[in-house]
Amino acid sequence: MNKIEHLGIAVKSLDASNELFHKLLGVAPYKLEVVASEGVKTSFFKTGESKIELLEATNEESPIAKFIEKRGEGIHHIAFDVADIKAEIKRLKEEGFVVLNETPKKGADNKWVVFLHPKATNGVLIELCQEIDSIE
Amino acid sequence: MNKIEHLGIAVKSLDASNELFHKLLGVAPYKLEVVASEGVKTSFFKTGESKIELLEATNEESPIAKFIEKRGEGIHHIAFDVADIKAEIKRLKEEGFVVLNETPKKGADNKWVVFLHPKATNGVLIELCQEIDSIE
Repeated sequence: MNKIEHLGIAVKSLDASNELFHKLLGVAPYKLEVVASEGVKTSFFKTGESKIELLEATNEESPIAKFIEKRGEGIHHIAFDVADIKAEIKRLKEEGFVVLNETPKKGADNKWVVFLHPKATNGVLIELCQEIDSIE
Repeated sequence: MNKIEHLGIAVKSLDASNELFHKLLGVAPYKLEVVASEGVKTSFFKTGESKIELLEATNEESPIAKFIEKRGEGIHHIAFDVADIKAEIKRLKEEGFVVLNETPKKGADNKWVVFLHPKATNGVLIELCQEIDSIE
């Protein structure tokens, strides 16, 4: 694990929360992106070497819609940057972690991503991600 | 806001979670610390320029005990490193954020800390912190 790549925060209104986090962090979001496959629209803010990702659901089946319905707005996941996502999946499975998708899938911000089941990580949804251009 | 200083994760057993996060992050905690005034014992792991802080309650009145009772284990707060905590408190109050303690208090890891009310920050408990040695 190289660093915290980003923190994902589930929000009801991306517009309102973009304004809020702009005030909080003192910077505007540098990117807005829709990830249709995940049913989310997102924005990204830089903070040091990490990012804050805000996520708004685009439909009722979105994991973000379900999260907010159950727990309200708040921190949804932590993403760690890894150098070799396939090697990390193998290592973590051997350590007893539960990988939600065996094959990395395309996430926001040009990343291959994989999620670990929060039941094996103290209730924390953990994402591993690796820049797409850095692997075949 | 300079960077994410740390992420605080509420856990039931610091011993068990230290082992878990050691496996996850590939590094051991570099520090264990009791903060009696907050009713917590904590451990810290380095990840890039940020840290993961695990928090276990030391009594039933601890904010961590109440958090776990209500929501279960999981991410408790995000802490941002700031250059001038008093100036940030002033700025954020003017922007409409609700500061939980007007005067910075001593937190773990040699920091002055202040918390923002999550009702004004999309359900996210936000901590600002500044190294104690860096101010009078």
